[in-house]
Amino acid sequence: MTSLAITGTSRGIGLELVRQLLDFPKDQVSKIFAITRSHLDEPLQRLIDGSHGRIENIVIEDFCSALQVQKAANQIQESLHGRGLDILVNNAGIMPASAGKIESVTGDQMLGVFGTNVVGAHMITSNFLPLLRAGAKKLAVNVSTAMGSIAYAPRYTFAPAHAYKISKAAMNMLNAQYALQYAEEGFTFVAISPGWIKTDLGSQYADLEVATGVTSVRDIILKADTSMNGKFVNIRVSGWEEAEGANQYNGAEIPW
Amino acid sequence: MTSLAITGTSRGIGLELVRQLLDFPKDQVSKIFAITRSHLDEPLQRLIDGSHGRIENIVIEDFCSALQVQKAANQIQESLHGRGLDILVNNAGIMPASAGKIESVTGDQMLGVFGTNVVGAHMITSNFLPLLRAGAKKLAVNVSTAMGSIAYAPRYTFAPAHAYKISKAAMNMLNAQYALQYAEEGFTFVAISPGWIKTDLGSQYADLEVATGVTSVRDIILKADTSMNGKFVNIRVSGWEEAEGANQYNGAEIPW
Repeated sequence: MTSLAITGTSRGIGLELVRQLLDFPKDQVSKIFAITRSHLDEPLQRLIDGSHGRIENIVIEDFCSALQVQKAANQIQESLHGRGLDILVNNAGIMPASAGKIESVTGDQMLGVFGTNVVGAHMITSNFLPLLRAGAKKLAVNVSTAMGSIAYAPRYTFAPAHAYKISKAAMNMLNAQYALQYAEEGFTFVAISPGWIKTDLGSQYADLEVATGVTSVRDIILKADTSMNGKFVNIRVSGWEEAEGANQYNGAEIPW
Repeated sequence: MTSLAITGTSRGIGLELVRQLLDFPKDQVSKIFAITRSHLDEPLQRLIDGSHGRIENIVIEDFCSALQVQKAANQIQESLHGRGLDILVNNAGIMPASAGKIESVTGDQMLGVFGTNVVGAHMITSNFLPLLRAGAKKLAVNVSTAMGSIAYAPRYTFAPAHAYKISKAAMNMLNAQYALQYAEEGFTFVAISPGWIKTDLGSQYADLEVATGVTSVRDIILKADTSMNGKFVNIRVSGWEEAEGANQYNGAEIPW
């Protein structure tokens, strides 16, 4: 009887995660709050229509608006009738492409990426804490990326996603701060690298089909317990465990 | 005949750094561009008045304004008569205190800290690249903090500077990205942790007198060469090398 709230569910990883979680029986995954930034796109709407009420759409136009995020938290609280939310997945993120070197990134671009990827995740997490506190798992998962690993930065020089990488290093610290501050309450905060996946964000040149990467993300989310608190883990994909560098998906912890 | 531009020179580390650099003979430190955000405070004005033209104040009210930063770069270029700038020190930073846990940090607070500490450093660096390219050292130093180390996060749970820590993890990635992208041009990008210093930001409870910490920062800056590119280093202070945890100042590299 697990309930989850997932941000960024219009497409990509978030949409596929909702799709795969819906395949579980209702006594395992009871409710999915699919958070989107605007009106529903067709694919998510179809999933909702066939979900017999197990998926509920929640709209938050601006993740940096405390008012909107709090309103969403209230909506989820009412829908759960006081049972608490078990799992939060901060999946929403943006990755504007930058053709040139880092010097071509404007201040507004960089600030916008921070706003969505870090401040957005923080606003959702902080405002959803009371809901999670009342839940059975007290688990928050931050969808990060190995490209946010400073130690691995030399592996990803081919990817011109400068502001994105910087924002994800910040998200990893955000995850670490929450992990340290709420461990004594039994919370678990995990950062996951979902691999290079064939989404709009990842492009058609990516390593993995969406379903392949998301299956591992889903498994990590459903199995995570307090022993994972504060960790930053890679997905595991059969056949890719022994790859070198950027294409390695071995389920191991990723250095900061 | 080294020229330097330093941000955040109204007080604290930046002011002391200007003061100590002025003690070097003119044939070693020829020119210091002391960048401030607003009109001059008394202590820097006194240094300028006694500097025989070696210190020049440059005002940038908003580091996120490309127009203002570019104007400052032009001002420095004219002052140097085409000789190029040797060293840039991104020292300006803010650390709003947060009394409570991370959940009490508002979105606006977090975005403001990113704006100054990360986007500001990026805007200065990117707009000063042509100046540095024409200089003799091609060195940019980012004043970071060991509190921005995710690996060391458990050491700093006593410090309620949540947004600051997150921004400095991001700054470390910013440093890494620049280091990777401009290494082939002979650039050096170094992140320094200046230690816990008795500035307004560090408070009276800090470990080190301002002059003590800054002496080590100054030495690292003046000795840095391309072998330091992409590194994140601690200051070294006599008597503190063997300390445990947060108070260790051993000159070593700090893990991400």
